[in-house]
Amino acid sequence: MLEKMDLTKKMDKETYKAKIEDLQEKLGGLQRECKALNIPVMIAFEGYDAAGKGSQIAELIQALDPRGFEVHAVKQETENEKMHAFLWRFWTKTPPNGRIAIYDSSWYRHVLVERFEKIMTKEQLANAYDSICSFERQLSDGGMAIIKIFLCIDKKEQKKRFKKLLKSKETAWRVTKADLKRNDDFGKYQAINEEMLQKTDTDYAPWTLVEATDRRFATIKIYTTVINALAAKVEAAKMPKAEEVAAAKPEYDKELQSSILSKADLTKMLTKEEYKKKLKVLQEKIQMLHGEMYRKRIPLVVGFEGWDAGGKGGAIKRLTEKMDPRGYVVHPTASPNDIEREHHYLWRFWEAMPKAGHATIFDRTWYGRVMVERIEGFCSTQDWQRAYKEMNDMESDLVNAGAVVLKFWLQIDQDEQKRRFEERQQNPEKQWKITDEDWRNREKWDQYEEAVNEMLIRTSTPKAPWIVVEGNCKYYARIKVLQSVVDALETRLKEEK
Amino acid sequence: MLEKMDLTKKMDKETYKAKIEDLQEKLGGLQRECKALNIPVMIAFEGYDAAGKGSQIAELIQALDPRGFEVHAVKQETENEKMHAFLWRFWTKTPPNGRIAIYDSSWYRHVLVERFEKIMTKEQLANAYDSICSFERQLSDGGMAIIKIFLCIDKKEQKKRFKKLLKSKETAWRVTKADLKRNDDFGKYQAINEEMLQKTDTDYAPWTLVEATDRRFATIKIYTTVINALAAKVEAAKMPKAEEVAAAKPEYDKELQSSILSKADLTKMLTKEEYKKKLKVLQEKIQMLHGEMYRKRIPLVVGFEGWDAGGKGGAIKRLTEKMDPRGYVVHPTASPNDIEREHHYLWRFWEAMPKAGHATIFDRTWYGRVMVERIEGFCSTQDWQRAYKEMNDMESDLVNAGAVVLKFWLQIDQDEQKRRFEERQQNPEKQWKITDEDWRNREKWDQYEEAVNEMLIRTSTPKAPWIVVEGNCKYYARIKVLQSVVDALETRLKEEK
Repeated sequence: MLEKMDLTKKMDKETYKAKIEDLQEKLGGLQRECKALNIPVMIAFEGYDAAGKGSQIAELIQALDPRGFEVHAVKQETENEKMHAFLWRFWTKTPPNGRIAIYDSSWYRHVLVERFEKIMTKEQLANAYDSICSFERQLSDGGMAIIKIFLCIDKKEQKKRFKKLLKSKETAWRVTKADLKRNDDFGKYQAINEEMLQKTDTDYAPWTLVEATDRRFATIKIYTTVINALAAKVEAAKMPKAEEVAAAKPEYDKELQSSILSKADLTKMLTKEEYKKKLKVLQEKIQMLHGEMYRKRIPLVVGFEGWDAGGKGGAIKRLTEKMDPRGYVVHPTASPNDIEREHHYLWRFWEAMPKAGHATIFDRTWYGRVMVERIEGFCSTQDWQRAYKEMNDMESDLVNAGAVVLKFWLQIDQDEQKRRFEERQQNPEKQWKITDEDWRNREKWDQYEEAVNEMLIRTSTPKAPWIVVEGNCKYYARIKVLQSVVDALETRLKEEK
Repeated sequence: MLEKMDLTKKMDKETYKAKIEDLQEKLGGLQRECKALNIPVMIAFEGYDAAGKGSQIAELIQALDPRGFEVHAVKQETENEKMHAFLWRFWTKTPPNGRIAIYDSSWYRHVLVERFEKIMTKEQLANAYDSICSFERQLSDGGMAIIKIFLCIDKKEQKKRFKKLLKSKETAWRVTKADLKRNDDFGKYQAINEEMLQKTDTDYAPWTLVEATDRRFATIKIYTTVINALAAKVEAAKMPKAEEVAAAKPEYDKELQSSILSKADLTKMLTKEEYKKKLKVLQEKIQMLHGEMYRKRIPLVVGFEGWDAGGKGGAIKRLTEKMDPRGYVVHPTASPNDIEREHHYLWRFWEAMPKAGHATIFDRTWYGRVMVERIEGFCSTQDWQRAYKEMNDMESDLVNAGAVVLKFWLQIDQDEQKRRFEERQQNPEKQWKITDEDWRNREKWDQYEEAVNEMLIRTSTPKAPWIVVEGNCKYYARIKVLQSVVDALETRLKEEK
């Protein structure tokens, strides 16, 4: 999830000024509504050191009536706290009905900073995650609004901030040795955070990742997150029917999303000659690796998603061309048929999963749940919001059973899509590939972009990553797909030895 | 949970005959309703070998339209199944909407029989539980009715049944070496089952433990369980409002419950002389052990529940008499005050939990949630049904942090209670102890008995057990309490060395 963040996001002063006043007013109003409706609220701030947790909390409370909230700075456990179960100090600090508690670092400290420093057995870690999920679930079931915010900066930015702090006597004390060690070992600490996010990003207490390189941008995104969450809770409290609540739609601001798709550099290209040369080498490698995977009994799952006419078919063709056809299946995913519709939405994908040593390549995947089903309203808001964790859990089961899981997003821009659509319409051989629905979907480009950006962030995990493929040049796209598969298989086979 | 089962439960032929026809009719009707409402149903049978899973399934399907269900016999994984994630074969066997799937042994096989036979790392085990809970949660969120039945017999009964099967050529093949090994190692296998029940007894997919020594009794209890679960699901499907669903109350048949309380032998007694002698010895031991616990930094949590006038106060007094007052607190639990009422119901108990080396003794506990709050309607049906797991989770957090957790139920019969109430009213020194509310509660004896029996079964865990104390003779009761505390502390301190 973290590696997908666009940390260059920023906001100029004017835009910030234009937005903040309105947001502060809204938040103040929501605080009063929560008080009137007796809704307790917990807001947890986590993220990298020096990402600005303290100053963002300071910004946030500007809008709040000071009689209605408190801020808990969560540091190392005191002697007294050490003498209790680790959640004790958080249970005792849960806010009463109608009040807001804000945590500067939170109950996640135990599985983040403390895990990095101390040795925890795998069993202790598993217990800690169980305890945390149970804690949040219980509070949420009891009516608590739980908002979890994760502030991201990268290693370089962090180092820069540390340096600045260390320069002055007044601030140097804020940088500890442990902070510096986590900067040195940024990759290792990032992996710990990744695992934490994956295990605890639930529908009842979801994480919001905030790009925090630019302070103004982060402030506006945090305000918007808190406002959306509280507004949904207030609406739910007023309307007892589960159905109507589910329909509540948060305000969406494109500017506040990591624009993964728009960041893709679509000028990347290869000449036909380069393409042919590379293709040959990679296909031979894949043939060999596919055989190795078969002998080592490792299953392979590859999912393809992307814009219509993004080049999925062509990429799949090149990927499989030299593979032994007895060892793979290409599984095209259309709308569910009558039988499939009578099952859980993941059922048909479980049915299709490869056995050990085999490969299944999905032409469109289970991610339809958070794209077309979300946008067309084929499932409820609750359904697709729950789905991120459901799909992460499924992929985690596959990986735990030994599988390699890869997911490709084939990205093209709107002009390129139009060009390809028109080409298809003019070419009698390709006319079957283009339907009215494709044109209709095209009109919903912005909605899809929002959904896809959210999907990429929330379901790209270290063990089942999303790979965004710059697809305006088909040659380039195909080579990137094949190269990514080769890399993943080689890495996995090395583990086996 | 399992050790609390009353395995002597049985039912005579006449009662059985009088009940079964009506139940079969009801179940048949519910199957048709589920079909009409498109509700899919999974019924999992687990339990000890030879407890009668097969024959109980045969009984159950008598009532069902054969076009609407299928039975899956879950054996060792096939070669093909081995080549997938362990849940794959169950995902692919989930029933479509409107159909019933029955599993003779189920997805729990992986953490039971297979765990007993193979070596699983703690991480694999934790992953397996995560996968199972996620599987059930996803299906339940998708509309599946999930019914899980666990058939219990004891070691002796199982041995007897094996012997009988082995006698005849026609049936001897049904007893495998692995079965016999699990009988030899019954205690170890029981512990595995206990852990499984504790980790997977959720509000969305609860377990029903069935006393299976007597076949007729088990059949009626299984029918009743399935009928209650389906009736609730059908009602929920008809009424979209969460509130009204929560109010659905299952039919309750006292006969079908493990009657733990009524099994307590209330004639147990001690003379005053015996009492005095034992008391002195035990109090000295406790004094010494309490010091040991303090030095070893082990926290102690003791909860007292029981009928009004059951003798809680007297027992607590004797327990603490020789303990160093700096090292323990007695925490009386009344109705929540204004501040407590504004928090999650477990908050005030978390507040009171002892730090390492200290003891907290609760006079009434968090279990009020599933007794008085359940019976008086102070919380919703959903609230108290969820609470069993919530309380198990809290105690599990305490135990994982090193605590000793013990829970006492002080049992007296109705006559004895009446005698004590009257004595209190006549004795001016004790009049303050008796209120009108005590008399009112007394009228709800049967309701409390039902709630307490269910509570004892669902929340007595190996690491935080319920101890039922036969309390008609106060001397006997106090000694049993003190002896139990001594035993638990000695066991725990041995682990520490």
